[in-house]
Amino acid sequence: MKKVGIVGANGYTGSELVRLLAFHPMIELSFLYSRSNSGTKISDLYPDLATVCEMTLTDKPSQVEILFLCLPHKESQNWLSQNTVGDETLVIDLGNDFRLDGSFQNRNFIYGLPEINKKNLSGVKSIANPGCFATAIQLALLPLAEKGLLNEVYTTGITGSTGAGQSLQSTTHFTWRNDNISAYKTLTHQHVDEVLQQLNSFNDKKVGLNFIPWRGDFTRGIFTSSTVKSDLELSDIEQLYRDFYEEAPFVKVNERAIDLKQVVNTNRCVIHIEKNDNVVVIHSAIDNLLKGASGQAVQNMNIAMGWKENLGLDLKPVGF
Amino acid sequence: MKKVGIVGANGYTGSELVRLLAFHPMIELSFLYSRSNSGTKISDLYPDLATVCEMTLTDKPSQVEILFLCLPHKESQNWLSQNTVGDETLVIDLGNDFRLDGSFQNRNFIYGLPEINKKNLSGVKSIANPGCFATAIQLALLPLAEKGLLNEVYTTGITGSTGAGQSLQSTTHFTWRNDNISAYKTLTHQHVDEVLQQLNSFNDKKVGLNFIPWRGDFTRGIFTSSTVKSDLELSDIEQLYRDFYEEAPFVKVNERAIDLKQVVNTNRCVIHIEKNDNVVVIHSAIDNLLKGASGQAVQNMNIAMGWKENLGLDLKPVGF
Amino acid sequence: MKKVGIVGANGYTGSELVRLLAFHPMIELSFLYSRSNSGTKISDLYPDLATVCEMTLTDKPSQVEILFLCLPHKESQNWLSQNTVGDETLVIDLGNDFRLDGSFQNRNFIYGLPEINKKNLSGVKSIANPGCFATAIQLALLPLAEKGLLNEVYTTGITGSTGAGQSLQSTTHFTWRNDNISAYKTLTHQHVDEVLQQLNSFNDKKVGLNFIPWRGDFTRGIFTSSTVKSDLELSDIEQLYRDFYEEAPFVKVNERAIDLKQVVNTNRCVIHIEKNDNVVVIHSAIDNLLKGASGQAVQNMNIAMGWKENLGLDLKPVGF
Amino acid sequence: MKKVGIVGANGYTGSELVRLLAFHPMIELSFLYSRSNSGTKISDLYPDLATVCEMTLTDKPSQVEILFLCLPHKESQNWLSQNTVGDETLVIDLGNDFRLDGSFQNRNFIYGLPEINKKNLSGVKSIANPGCFATAIQLALLPLAEKGLLNEVYTTGITGSTGAGQSLQSTTHFTWRNDNISAYKTLTHQHVDEVLQQLNSFNDKKVGLNFIPWRGDFTRGIFTSSTVKSDLELSDIEQLYRDFYEEAPFVKVNERAIDLKQVVNTNRCVIHIEKNDNVVVIHSAIDNLLKGASGQAVQNMNIAMGWKENLGLDLKPVGF
Repeated sequence: MKKVGIVGANGYTGSELVRLLAFHPMIELSFLYSRSNSGTKISDLYPDLATVCEMTLTDKPSQVEILFLCLPHKESQNWLSQNTVGDETLVIDLGNDFRLDGSFQNRNFIYGLPEINKKNLSGVKSIANPGCFATAIQLALLPLAEKGLLNEVYTTGITGSTGAGQSLQSTTHFTWRNDNISAYKTLTHQHVDEVLQQLNSFNDKKVGLNFIPWRGDFTRGIFTSSTVKSDLELSDIEQLYRDFYEEAPFVKVNERAIDLKQVVNTNRCVIHIEKNDNVVVIHSAIDNLLKGASGQAVQNMNIAMGWKENLGLDLKPVGF
Repeated sequence: MKKVGIVGANGYTGSELVRLLAFHPMIELSFLYSRSNSGTKISDLYPDLATVCEMTLTDKPSQVEILFLCLPHKESQNWLSQNTVGDETLVIDLGNDFRLDGSFQNRNFIYGLPEINKKNLSGVKSIANPGCFATAIQLALLPLAEKGLLNEVYTTGITGSTGAGQSLQSTTHFTWRNDNISAYKTLTHQHVDEVLQQLNSFNDKKVGLNFIPWRGDFTRGIFTSSTVKSDLELSDIEQLYRDFYEEAPFVKVNERAIDLKQVVNTNRCVIHIEKNDNVVVIHSAIDNLLKGASGQAVQNMNIAMGWKENLGLDLKPVGF
Repeated sequence: MKKVGIVGANGYTGSELVRLLAFHPMIELSFLYSRSNSGTKISDLYPDLATVCEMTLTDKPSQVEILFLCLPHKESQNWLSQNTVGDETLVIDLGNDFRLDGSFQNRNFIYGLPEINKKNLSGVKSIANPGCFATAIQLALLPLAEKGLLNEVYTTGITGSTGAGQSLQSTTHFTWRNDNISAYKTLTHQHVDEVLQQLNSFNDKKVGLNFIPWRGDFTRGIFTSSTVKSDLELSDIEQLYRDFYEEAPFVKVNERAIDLKQVVNTNRCVIHIEKNDNVVVIHSAIDNLLKGASGQAVQNMNIAMGWKENLGLDLKPVGF
Repeated sequence: MKKVGIVGANGYTGSELVRLLAFHPMIELSFLYSRSNSGTKISDLYPDLATVCEMTLTDKPSQVEILFLCLPHKESQNWLSQNTVGDETLVIDLGNDFRLDGSFQNRNFIYGLPEINKKNLSGVKSIANPGCFATAIQLALLPLAEKGLLNEVYTTGITGSTGAGQSLQSTTHFTWRNDNISAYKTLTHQHVDEVLQQLNSFNDKKVGLNFIPWRGDFTRGIFTSSTVKSDLELSDIEQLYRDFYEEAPFVKVNERAIDLKQVVNTNRCVIHIEKNDNVVVIHSAIDNLLKGASGQAVQNMNIAMGWKENLGLDLKPVGF
């Protein structure tokens, strides 16, 4: 049993890690760190955790073998600067501090998208967990990018309200958001750079991404549709995708139409491809808190530790 | 055309009054008062009001012939104390300051439930608009109360999120409220006294009300089910209700099952009665912002001013 | 008062017409035609219509001055072939039978998008009412198309469940659709041809449209985002749109972000434009049953009859 | 590993059993029986089951050690009459055929509410799984009933759409049900008898139950509030409940307010008690498909087989 600490356990991704790790067979939770909620039971913040985890949040971290950082963007660096973390501790950062540039202190954070980086993640001590939209978009595009078949991409994606975190804002107010759709950060979402860095890593070809994120009127999940041009046959494209994801236990290329609910409360990504003339549309869906955040973090932990990739991630889908 | 002012126009019930009064044929809006949002266009706060009302909120009220107070509870008294309102001005208070005791300054606020008070409201200058739950529950019970047939009542009611106003709270956060149900103010809701005052006004019989309010995962509407004991035949009870509401243009006693959507975006109340052995259940549904607040306020204005009761209230239902 | 008949009054768009026309000052409803529900009160099918319209559906149409056809696609032609309609009767078809080719019998259906065709609609006797997605997409693109500034367009749109009509299908089952998102008719939606016919009518430039429709988890509304390339300044584009819609009472070009709820239960379309580098995104939102169907049909009727364009269409927004 | 068969695996509760049993450490699925969908992969009906279970539905059952019947009411008897089931097979019926009278063929079905019957369930071969509402209501009332402290009960409960099964009906149509609330089977719900049989089993006291079920606009979950009279102190009642549920791993008596989401996708029941004067309100919440159906069935299986009660039921809550 490895000792695990979660920094920022009071947030959505932090609490989702607790939901996962409470049942993980190889770890034990050592501390749940929160400055603002220190002294509060995690199950008082998230009552669904009653009987799952009865730990109290603390602002006194201890030495652990695995450390998850679930902090607002830019605060992971601060936390690592202000706290002592042993060199042998596996640090998995769920923020975006180390995704574009992984060098920090004497650590080198590896981009934790197992579907392209599984070999590089084995045994490492520092992992930058991808963003939620970045995961859904990359999984939809990687097989084409790897073959140099990608040029300009037009993507629309919709995200559940948990993507906005627990802060109270006008756009997370129920009265506003229920039955509502809106766009935000049009063409300028912070995940675009992260996606392009990976898509353009395969060859010289310059991939462009026009990404329009929408806010959805549901809590969990991301659904994206990406439009690209290609002269390949649909069946060849599908084969390309099946080959690419042959070793990926959590990615499923579906011949039939997909929908968001197929993945809610699972660590999976489902993909469906359609084609008309030379226009290809790739749809993808994930649970933003699982494959888009905490589930993928556990998957990365499993790989880094040499455990089975799906350990603790065989989750009952919510289904309905 | 009568001049109208709305105090607290920046809130939900205030903005809903704007939605109604912008199309009312007998009035013109003179000012929309808000201290906190003075200088802001109402359509910047509520963009659905663009092209409906382009007025700017002000903290300088002017003299008007009709004044609506849409303030948090207890602040109507303060506002009337600090501002000069002409004796001839019709004041309609949507808060609960004058519902139980209507005497204030030289005014005597009449309880504005037209279904029991229509005659008393004609020509008056001060009206206390009923609460939303209070309206739905009273309309479900009044015909039995008037005949002295009511003893102990067990009521459960569910309300949309607009009932909680626009403030950001954990219980109005989309992530929490979506697909969720919860109880609040069990047996102690502030509308109970208001309901009992009316129900017990008809005769000596002491009516009791055990009321459990629930928060619903929708924005508009109130649905209630009240259980009472009675030896009357169902058909007699239905006839009692139909007689009682014969002159009430906005109350419909329905022989078929009712549901919340039948009244959303209308000023109506629908009622359905069922009976098994000697147990009677009366269901009622209203739109909490209309018949439960701003719509009823306009109805009261129409009656007080001697206009047709449904003027400006023939609203297209949302239906779906 | 003009006599009006509605064929297919038992469907969603037909019943929505009833909601609108019941309060329209210039018309009276003569008959509500339905073969399958003949003999049933419309308010038994749509209980929100109780007190709004107490008519009974019939399969015996009478002569009227204005006739609305709210039939499944391809059935308008059948109905007109099997029933006698006077030459002087204004026929407004809400289906897609006459949108691409308006010649039928001795009639010539004019495409009823008032924002481009207002002059041509005045006094006509035959109007083909546009599709819902077609309306939202065209209003987002017309100002650029008219100037020949449009090339390839990438559009994603999301529609409420009322767009799928009242038939019970797996994709309209609440358990499936709630909190769910899915794509359908990717790149092949039937409205694409209708949109392109208009966009390409202005000049020789060949506009292409890659359109991905999504099913949303709400009942009313359409939200679209269209991505195009342009070297114009954003302010110039906005000015272009404001100029184009100067005479359009129901279209509003908004400088601030828009959302779906701004238009629910109104006949309006709101538009918001954003730009990054040479990429322009135009967002638009309408209520699919109003500006996307029955509201626009009333607008077209008003124009054809020489009445004020917004007669009967000053609707209280639902707002929340 | 025990061989398990599921009859009616194509329905909601049947598929939910698959979701649970696919990960249960002591069983292996032998067959999924469905007459109407024989030959179809279960994951084609429920795509969330892809990668979870790739079995194909069959109409040829084989001999198993544990058999779950997930059939419409009254069809369990038919199925058992028409198929041969070994005497040693544990049969768990999720319908209501054997809840009131457990005698059938040479079997004697034990009522499978572990919180009152755990000892009686150990080693048995026939279990009648309780109804969903019946579970939520009984768990809210049993501690008082056992002490003879219960007289007349007034309960309102609200259920998610999965309670109505997968059939397409007007009341499960998204357009109707979204944002809607309605009552059904007022005072006559089929679970009332089942509840009263248990509540009145403790002593001579005659308990009455006035139960109003509501349809909710969410998919999973049941929330109930029951009002009773009592002269006990609140703290004594809470203690009574804590004592009663001391050995119940899935029931939690909560001092703080509960809400539906605390239990979605878990096998738990949460209870909260409030009191005002001599009126006591007990709130309870469960997931109707888990503690209200398939989860409880697995719990019963575990008990009957002598396994740990929570085996395969430590589920990640959906939380949001």
